[in-house]
Amino acid sequence: MHATTLIVGGCRSGKSRHALELGDAMMGRSKLFVATCVPQDQEMRERVDRHKEERGSHWQTLEAPLDLPDALSRHGPKADLVVVDCLTLWISNLMLAHAGDAHAIDWHIDQLCAVLNRPPCPMILVTNEVGAGIVPENRLARHFRDWVGRANQRAAAACRQVIWMVAGIAVPIKKADS
Amino acid sequence: MHATTLIVGGCRSGKSRHALELGDAMMGRSKLFVATCVPQDQEMRERVDRHKEERGSHWQTLEAPLDLPDALSRHGPKADLVVVDCLTLWISNLMLAHAGDAHAIDWHIDQLCAVLNRPPCPMILVTNEVGAGIVPENRLARHFRDWVGRANQRAAAACRQVIWMVAGIAVPIKKADS
Amino acid sequence: MHATTLIVGGCRSGKSRHALELGDAMMGRSKLFVATCVPQDQEMRERVDRHKEERGSHWQTLEAPLDLPDALSRHGPKADLVVVDCLTLWISNLMLAHAGDAHAIDWHIDQLCAVLNRPPCPMILVTNEVGAGIVPENRLARHFRDWVGRANQRAAAACRQVIWMVAGIAVPIKKADS
Repeated sequence: MHATTLIVGGCRSGKSRHALELGDAMMGRSKLFVATCVPQDQEMRERVDRHKEERGSHWQTLEAPLDLPDALSRHGPKADLVVVDCLTLWISNLMLAHAGDAHAIDWHIDQLCAVLNRPPCPMILVTNEVGAGIVPENRLARHFRDWVGRANQRAAAACRQVIWMVAGIAVPIKKADS
Repeated sequence: MHATTLIVGGCRSGKSRHALELGDAMMGRSKLFVATCVPQDQEMRERVDRHKEERGSHWQTLEAPLDLPDALSRHGPKADLVVVDCLTLWISNLMLAHAGDAHAIDWHIDQLCAVLNRPPCPMILVTNEVGAGIVPENRLARHFRDWVGRANQRAAAACRQVIWMVAGIAVPIKKADS
Repeated sequence: MHATTLIVGGCRSGKSRHALELGDAMMGRSKLFVATCVPQDQEMRERVDRHKEERGSHWQTLEAPLDLPDALSRHGPKADLVVVDCLTLWISNLMLAHAGDAHAIDWHIDQLCAVLNRPPCPMILVTNEVGAGIVPENRLARHFRDWVGRANQRAAAACRQVIWMVAGIAVPIKKADS
């Protein structure tokens, strides 16, 4: 079975950097970076391009803001490794696209877990912890943190390894052989 | 001495589920679920009833929004196990009931710790980490996170085991024999 | 090489208390507490004075709201131990003083890391995790959590030990010999 790793942490905890370091250390010539972020303006586009350049030419980049599970099923079998960055933004995109429809969002998370349960290649997924602050006053923000929390729990249950990131330090909290 | 376990984690980190799983795995026929949440409307009442049903008939349910230590002292000795869900809401209830009076709130936390120091039965308590986001602009929210942080520290010091929950993964951070 | 320890945690997680307990347990007669907080009013001044008294007479106190690296370079060689409380407020002070100028803030973090890489004495630094809640709506707050996250990552990389604090429990996540 291919390795699946979920990296969970707060904003600027070093999650993406760690995902790429893990990815760079793994074998294979065909590495795929799946971005769930779709640049909305010129500034974001430039930032996305800069990140692409920093990853180096051995990384292919694919944008999958909504159909992430499908993209993983289609492109995973041809890749030596996939990094997904990040589930948090994917959930945000799903909430927007489906106007908060719980069944639709749940269905997508089901699909992601189905991929993680039978991974077509080694996979590293990045996600944010967004639930360790004060309850937000904004209702949408409360729904968002509920959904991200649910998605994180389900992805963590499906992945063989889970890493908690704090201040750039990777803390393994679920190990493949445990 | 009976085991006492504090489960700390962000919103939707799987704390309550883990508390019930630990509780279900423990011996005993008389298990008590102490809820600090008092439903304010029909929607909450239905949610509370649904959770009660999910726990199954071997769990008794008791609502203790304010007099939690007293409820634990009175009902603990008759129970094989008590789960308290959650301290965060209890602190919120205390702040409201006592109009933020620091001595009154402190006194209640003292009482809780007194129970935890001489537990009448095995106890599992759930609480939220609410202090790992940005300082809230709302003054009441700042006081709330101060109080929750203080209560968490004191409960963690009094409990024999502490578990940190992230994405549904239980990370033991204080162990009974350490 | 002198020991350097970074203590990261949410608000009211017991970071400062743990820093002082570690500091009290260490050898030496000349212990320096470097505060990055500058009291703005009478209430804060009283709180700062109260903390100073609680630390006891074996602790010297120095206020370094901005020139922290310089203060550490100058006073560290004469001290047996330095506790810095906290980096979060230092970043906030730098953002204010430099009107958010990224190069100036980065330069100061570089200077701090230079000190941590060749510590003039054993050092214990306290900092907040502020990135594990919902994305703040306030733009300045978003910049702040980006900067604190970056500073935390760099300080954690430079320190030989890193401790994650939850509910007053110290969890070692980077160890000196690892």
